[in-house]
This record gives sequence, C-alpha cells and structure tokens, in this order.
Amino acid sequence: MAQPPLPPPTSTIPPFVGLIVRILTFICLLISLIIIATNTEKSIDEDGNEDKTKFNDFYAYRYLISIVIIGMAYTLLQSAFSIFFVATGNRFGGEGFCLFDFYGDKFISYFLVTGAAASFGMTQEFKRLAGSDNKFLNTSNAAASLCLIGFFFAAVSSIFSSYNLPKRA
Amino acid sequence: MAQPPLPPPTSTIPPFVGLIVRILTFICLLISLIIIATNTEKSIDEDGNEDKTKFNDFYAYRYLISIVIIGMAYTLLQSAFSIFFVATGNRFGGEGFCLFDFYGDKFISYFLVTGAAASFGMTQEFKRLAGSDNKFLNTSNAAASLCLIGFFFAAVSSIFSSYNLPKRA
Repeated sequence: MAQPPLPPPTSTIPPFVGLIVRILTFICLLISLIIIATNTEKSIDEDGNEDKTKFNDFYAYRYLISIVIIGMAYTLLQSAFSIFFVATGNRFGGEGFCLFDFYGDKFISYFLVTGAAASFGMTQEFKRLAGSDNKFLNTSNAAASLCLIGFFFAAVSSIFSSYNLPKRA
Repeated sequence: MAQPPLPPPTSTIPPFVGLIVRILTFICLLISLIIIATNTEKSIDEDGNEDKTKFNDFYAYRYLISIVIIGMAYTLLQSAFSIFFVATGNRFGGEGFCLFDFYGDKFISYFLVTGAAASFGMTQEFKRLAGSDNKFLNTSNAAASLCLIGFFFAAVSSIFSSYNLPKRA
C-alpha cells in the first residue's frame, strides 16, 4: 500500500518563537537608546568654561539614535501582531500580511545594521585621535554594539518571515 | 465544467533577470574597488617632505575594500551558477542549493551595506574637520556610494532567493 506523504522538510516557525525574538530585539534597542541618549562627557576648555559632549555633536550617533527609534517603533508594532497571533492562533491580516512582514523585516534589519556600522566606523577612527581609553567613545561603542545585537535578532525575524512567504508554484 | 486552477500569484523569477542583477552588482563593486584603491592625496608636511594619504590610512576604508572584494568573489561565483541556469534551464545543485543562495545573499547584502555605512559615517565626520571640499574624502564617498548601489542590487538578489526558497506546507 502507498505510504502517506512525508511532511515537508522546512516546517513553519511556531508563533511564540517569533514573539520571543521580537521582544529580544526590542530590549536590545531600548538599552542602546538609553545608553546613547544619556552618554555625556564634561570637559573644561581653555577659557575655563564647562563644555559638554553629547550624542548630537556627531552625525553618526544622531543617525544611530534615529535608526534605533525607528527600529523600536517597528518592533513594537510587530510584537503586537505576534501577541495577537499567539493568543488567537490566527495571523493578523491573513496570508497577504506576510509580504508586509517580509519587506518590513528586511528593511528594518538593513537599517539597524547601517546604524551600528556607521557608529563603529566613526568611533574607531576617533579613538585613534582621542586615545583608546576615551570614556565617551567607549560608551558610544557599547550603544552601537547593542544596536548590532538588536540587528542580529531582527535578521532572525527576517529569516522567519522569508520562510512564511506565501506559497508559490 | 470546472475551470483549470489559476496560476499562483507569485511566480518564480526568470533566470536571466537574476543573472542581470548579479552582473550589475559585480560592475558596481568593481568600479567601487578601482576608485577606493586608486584614491591617493599628496600633501607636503612642515619639513617639506611629501606625504601620501591612501585608503589604508583609515580603518573604515580598509574595511570597505575587504567587503567589496568579498562581495565581488561571491557575486562572481553566483553569476557563474546563474549562467549555468540560463544556459541549461536547470538550477546548479538542484533545489537544496536554494538555501545556500538564500543565506549567502542575505549575509553578503548585510556585509555590503555595513561597508558603505561605516565609510559614510567616518567620512561625514572627517569632512567637518577637513572641510567639505576635500578631494580625498569626496572620492572615498563616491566609492562608498557605488558600494551602496551594489548593495541595492544584492538586496534585490536576496529578495529573489527568498521567493525561491523550497516549498513549505
């Protein structure tokens, strides 16, 4: 007698795994935002005036903070959809919504990695000028690293949403 | 009488379109490599000695050149597979090879965008210090822009290979 067909090798990912990855992305981006926004360095200039160095003195860190905020907003939205999926067992918006997931995850993961890369690129060069033990630059590097870890989780979400693309011929 | 079933909404991408995108990626990366590798600036220091500024004086440009070379090697390999696909009508390595395409394209496109972002992040900050009409930095920006255009084509390849993922349940 004929055997029943075997299940396909690549099964779909359980909804709660997707939700956990989203939450981890959000936590990393949140910590990154707090670190970069609170990172200040006081210095005294030649005339004895106090001078503050903040993230908005550098293009790359301003870019990083914008990217992190955009990433957080998107991840929060997607987490809400994931909670809906876990709670009801139905995907929000149905099958067609998978395309929004796919392109959204792809764009956001590319954006997050550019934020981290731009900050690292700048910080490495400035460390050579300012000395490698500069506290402000080291703290900024920590924020960029957290953005990079957030990107890794976003890339995992992007791989999941690629597997969830509508079926083809 | 029953109608024959309609074709699925997302059809697979014709092989020659994939090949054209690979070739465009390669051309952008090649021009980027030539620009960054030949970019030099001569200057005279205080003692009257001639001093040359080259890409390898900056971390971000050294990173850019490595990424562009890795991207070119990968794109060349994938172009060879695409030519095989166009010529014979069979995918090299069969269906299982789609997973290599999918993850390969994803990694390479992420790498390319970090190369461009790191260079832009550094260049923007140095332009503020060196003046916005610095020829060396403007030429480096052109190389980073070409890497970014190469990334856009690589991202298109990555979208194609996501659609070509093995069928799921």
